[in-house]
Amino acid sequence: MQIGMIGLGRMGANMVRRLLRDGHECVVYDINEAAVATLAREGAIAASSLEAFVDRLEKPRSAWLMLPAAFTGQMVGKLAALMEAGDIIIDGGNSNYRDAVDQAAKLQPKGLNYVDVGTSGGVWGLDRGYCLMIGGPEAAVKHLDPVFATLAPDTGEPASPTGSTAPRGYLHCGPSGAGHFVKMVHNGIEYGLMAAYAEGFNILKAANAGNVVRAADAETAPLDEPQYYKFDIDVAGVAEVWRHGSVIGSWLLDLTADALKTDPALAGFGGRVSDSGEGRWTLKAAIDTGVPAPVLASALFDRFSSRGESAFADKLLSAMRFAFGGHVEKPKDGQ
Amino acid sequence: MQIGMIGLGRMGANMVRRLLRDGHECVVYDINEAAVATLAREGAIAASSLEAFVDRLEKPRSAWLMLPAAFTGQMVGKLAALMEAGDIIIDGGNSNYRDAVDQAAKLQPKGLNYVDVGTSGGVWGLDRGYCLMIGGPEAAVKHLDPVFATLAPDTGEPASPTGSTAPRGYLHCGPSGAGHFVKMVHNGIEYGLMAAYAEGFNILKAANAGNVVRAADAETAPLDEPQYYKFDIDVAGVAEVWRHGSVIGSWLLDLTADALKTDPALAGFGGRVSDSGEGRWTLKAAIDTGVPAPVLASALFDRFSSRGESAFADKLLSAMRFAFGGHVEKPKDGQ
Amino acid sequence: MQIGMIGLGRMGANMVRRLLRDGHECVVYDINEAAVATLAREGAIAASSLEAFVDRLEKPRSAWLMLPAAFTGQMVGKLAALMEAGDIIIDGGNSNYRDAVDQAAKLQPKGLNYVDVGTSGGVWGLDRGYCLMIGGPEAAVKHLDPVFATLAPDTGEPASPTGSTAPRGYLHCGPSGAGHFVKMVHNGIEYGLMAAYAEGFNILKAANAGNVVRAADAETAPLDEPQYYKFDIDVAGVAEVWRHGSVIGSWLLDLTADALKTDPALAGFGGRVSDSGEGRWTLKAAIDTGVPAPVLASALFDRFSSRGESAFADKLLSAMRFAFGGHVEKPKDGQ
Amino acid sequence: MQIGMIGLGRMGANMVRRLLRDGHECVVYDINEAAVATLAREGAIAASSLEAFVDRLEKPRSAWLMLPAAFTGQMVGKLAALMEAGDIIIDGGNSNYRDAVDQAAKLQPKGLNYVDVGTSGGVWGLDRGYCLMIGGPEAAVKHLDPVFATLAPDTGEPASPTGSTAPRGYLHCGPSGAGHFVKMVHNGIEYGLMAAYAEGFNILKAANAGNVVRAADAETAPLDEPQYYKFDIDVAGVAEVWRHGSVIGSWLLDLTADALKTDPALAGFGGRVSDSGEGRWTLKAAIDTGVPAPVLASALFDRFSSRGESAFADKLLSAMRFAFGGHVEKPKDGQ
Repeated sequence: MQIGMIGLGRMGANMVRRLLRDGHECVVYDINEAAVATLAREGAIAASSLEAFVDRLEKPRSAWLMLPAAFTGQMVGKLAALMEAGDIIIDGGNSNYRDAVDQAAKLQPKGLNYVDVGTSGGVWGLDRGYCLMIGGPEAAVKHLDPVFATLAPDTGEPASPTGSTAPRGYLHCGPSGAGHFVKMVHNGIEYGLMAAYAEGFNILKAANAGNVVRAADAETAPLDEPQYYKFDIDVAGVAEVWRHGSVIGSWLLDLTADALKTDPALAGFGGRVSDSGEGRWTLKAAIDTGVPAPVLASALFDRFSSRGESAFADKLLSAMRFAFGGHVEKPKDGQ
Repeated sequence: MQIGMIGLGRMGANMVRRLLRDGHECVVYDINEAAVATLAREGAIAASSLEAFVDRLEKPRSAWLMLPAAFTGQMVGKLAALMEAGDIIIDGGNSNYRDAVDQAAKLQPKGLNYVDVGTSGGVWGLDRGYCLMIGGPEAAVKHLDPVFATLAPDTGEPASPTGSTAPRGYLHCGPSGAGHFVKMVHNGIEYGLMAAYAEGFNILKAANAGNVVRAADAETAPLDEPQYYKFDIDVAGVAEVWRHGSVIGSWLLDLTADALKTDPALAGFGGRVSDSGEGRWTLKAAIDTGVPAPVLASALFDRFSSRGESAFADKLLSAMRFAFGGHVEKPKDGQ
Repeated sequence: MQIGMIGLGRMGANMVRRLLRDGHECVVYDINEAAVATLAREGAIAASSLEAFVDRLEKPRSAWLMLPAAFTGQMVGKLAALMEAGDIIIDGGNSNYRDAVDQAAKLQPKGLNYVDVGTSGGVWGLDRGYCLMIGGPEAAVKHLDPVFATLAPDTGEPASPTGSTAPRGYLHCGPSGAGHFVKMVHNGIEYGLMAAYAEGFNILKAANAGNVVRAADAETAPLDEPQYYKFDIDVAGVAEVWRHGSVIGSWLLDLTADALKTDPALAGFGGRVSDSGEGRWTLKAAIDTGVPAPVLASALFDRFSSRGESAFADKLLSAMRFAFGGHVEKPKDGQ
Repeated sequence: MQIGMIGLGRMGANMVRRLLRDGHECVVYDINEAAVATLAREGAIAASSLEAFVDRLEKPRSAWLMLPAAFTGQMVGKLAALMEAGDIIIDGGNSNYRDAVDQAAKLQPKGLNYVDVGTSGGVWGLDRGYCLMIGGPEAAVKHLDPVFATLAPDTGEPASPTGSTAPRGYLHCGPSGAGHFVKMVHNGIEYGLMAAYAEGFNILKAANAGNVVRAADAETAPLDEPQYYKFDIDVAGVAEVWRHGSVIGSWLLDLTADALKTDPALAGFGGRVSDSGEGRWTLKAAIDTGVPAPVLASALFDRFSSRGESAFADKLLSAMRFAFGGHVEKPKDGQ
């Protein structure tokens, strides 16, 4: 079928490629003209303006946006002004699901359909397929089924007896917003999983603490029983062995093993970990609904800390310690 | 080769089966005579006493223990008294790695080898193979290689260029204790991963909070913006779709999807979550070595809470709230 | 000076009393007529309707609302319709500071002043005075200074050299919203402090675990080194001794010691801990601004858990354990 | 009465001074001769060697050790060799309570008494008095009562009707080890309280995030609703106002207000927060006994993180993000 794509960055461009490969017609637009030209050479239909993009689409038009969340809102506005009742706007980016709830409510009077698609698979999706979590009106979602089927992994699983598409890697999760809600929680979990591995490998790395000489003073907790911390663990080897038959095998572990094999000290990274919003929104949803989420929270807060955001709090702790106990901060080289 | 196995419970019996299938000779012993008889019928050599067990083994003897951690120590003692220099005792159970460090130090003067093997794979290991994390003296570990190779998954991966056995699912991690140390951290991570999924699914479950009527009083935080919590998510479907192409795919997720498919409300479970020690030891290791592990800690503490261990703390919170604010506890049906 | 008070519950009524005692004129209104009558007998001027209330106030009118957050918004609307430019609406309840930001923006075109006052002191404020955190336009806050000075504790501290009123127990923290923002963080901290004490006392309570007989099976982590857990601690005595000269002395500890003295087992409480919103909002603010707040988060999530909100997550953990390891849940009497 | 003191650092010297002021006879010893000489000038009896120290004490001898935990053990050994049945060794330092349990067991056959005293009060104890948490044999603790009464704060409280000394600031908590156990939990709580304040003030500090210009790209979570984060909060003022009548008033807050008054940006501190062991031991006790302590854990782990101990974990997170999503780390100046 025909589909329009706006936003030809890392994700958007590869999704177009996957769709083209499977015989779909893709109309593409981006403010970056080079990105448009590249995909045109690969078989997409280039649009040189938003108006041209909309004109080129057959009714009911399907326009898929793959933009940074900060720019999606205003693009939806522009697009809605050019589109007609029955048309479908799809937000496949990492937007807050609340935007989808709000946009759907705003566009409904015009007869426009708003479909939100949470998309997981990262840079690997082109070959591996994308896991799609979909929210929106039943009919619009049905209409887009061929597109979803192509983007999703060809998992070769038989259709579920209930007819669910979940075994094929895409799922209509509910009304507008439900797709991004489920994707949001997906990323919240992702943060938690990543942190669990990261903490574990950090502990393995420290298993030789008993071989390291440390100061013995009132400011430093001595290492209890150093005889139990004399292991020099090959963390890359451990990551690899855990991939085979262990309970904690996962795709993230596969990637971790790969990263550690290439660079066991991870010298290429500074440890300044970004977050792109979903982890935050997941926690806010947990807080709103009164659901305990200490693991997901800890995972998020560690990212904040990795960027130095604990600084004032930590200074305050040192200030208190000095105030009540006369404890003077140890210099950086000390513990 | 020949191997002796003591402890024929869930794990031990299946390991014997996997070894027999691959042509190894297994001498088996357990205080449960029925368990011994069962395996004898399947081709194992039954020993009716510990002495008989040791006698039946060829030198250097290899005796693998697969016992609850609480009973391993005294069995090692009995066994050591019957064995000779060059013999090998293998602890494949969920013992504290510290026991292995201590046992190895105690047995070394007698010339006995202590090999600790962390074993992951659960009830699936018989068919899937076991991921093995091994600690102990180089020569003893080498000697046991055929056994490890059989127990580990046949992953069909080419041998690593460095000759590491990690791609085949087993790894010699270091001296005695290193195997259980790595397994300990493995389980610590496992707790974290499980909690990340569990929290996420719990948030999905609560996504319809905006459809639920709640009291509006000074003791109850009102639900902010209920319009954003009107999703009735099919959690089993979501678990299934995440298995295909998403970043959070894993074996644990496969099992979760399966469990939710069978029983979406998980009515068969009460939510009283045990922990078998490794999560605790992982945290103690993190604490000893000064490694932050907030995610792993939260995962462990939630298990404690699930068993009612927060009760006194929670009562104290209510008592304080009453003391400073006159807040009277809401009855169970409330909030 | 003259002040109007709407909402004569626990907090509002006592604030009126404290104001009357210091010679202020108080016009009072509540939908609960008995509450109005009671205060009228104590010297307040009763208003039988909102209109009468507004009429009775001298210009510029000052109307202080002390209502549950869920009802404040609509009362502000009604009041605003009856008031005139230059009048002042004060929200002294536990509202979200965002409401104050929004209300101030909405009322400004009408020339109405919106002052938000975070109020701490609980049921003790009548005698002890209330700690007041104030947001709003400079002139309106200045105008209300005599009211704030009366409500705040008479701490007998000399005025600060900079003229700050903080040493007297009230502070103008910034524009509309700043007062409730600071009060929100105050409560966030309060949750953290309370949880720190509660966890500590719970650990003291468990210090005799080594005297308790426990099962030794594969589902139960055995107590390591029981010889170190044979203390039968008098927690009430400990709470009392900590009040004297220790680093952790505080008003909350004073109240805790009192509660434990009366009822050391806290048998009068069920441990179902409510939260009234500020802890949630504090965390959301931390999340929005990228500030790590793991302690405050843990404190909040424990309250959620105390109300059973972990149930589905915990069932999922048990379901996973059963799936990979065949672990059957222990019954309630176990571990 | 007469008491010997070994270890004349910050704490030990001030305790001697407080004892001398109240008329006790103090025999003092330290490897630092200048410290001995100073106290001798203030009225203490100087001992030039450990032997001289023991000789100078009247039977039953009472020797109080105030040493870094790392040195206490060997000093107890030396002292025990010189002392006789009925003598009392008091450990007033920050030792692990397990040492007291072990030492008591070791010294009991010789008839020596081991009394462990947890001491809180920091550098302020000289004037304010020390809060004392005491473990040890009944008779020995009774014998030392005059010393405890002097060291503890003169709180002017009437004796408790039950005769408990808790209202006077010291408490016999149980057998040897109980004193340090209670002190350990005290410090665990202290870490939690400190972190709660620190996180809260950090959130206040960030309340102006809406006035700060931030990048809008796929790697940076945008600030939701910046209009709600436009407060420029005077954190020193807030700390001061909270001291008066609020629910979160405490001695730690008094010290915090003082520190912020002097240096609102806390420029004199780097934020590298030490921990001296008790927080770690508290958590281990919680873990051993199955008590949830997420707040105390988070507080401890933040200290570890403040010292850079998350580095490898954070690099691993960045490595994973790069692997699955092609996310390149932002440089230090970015978010």
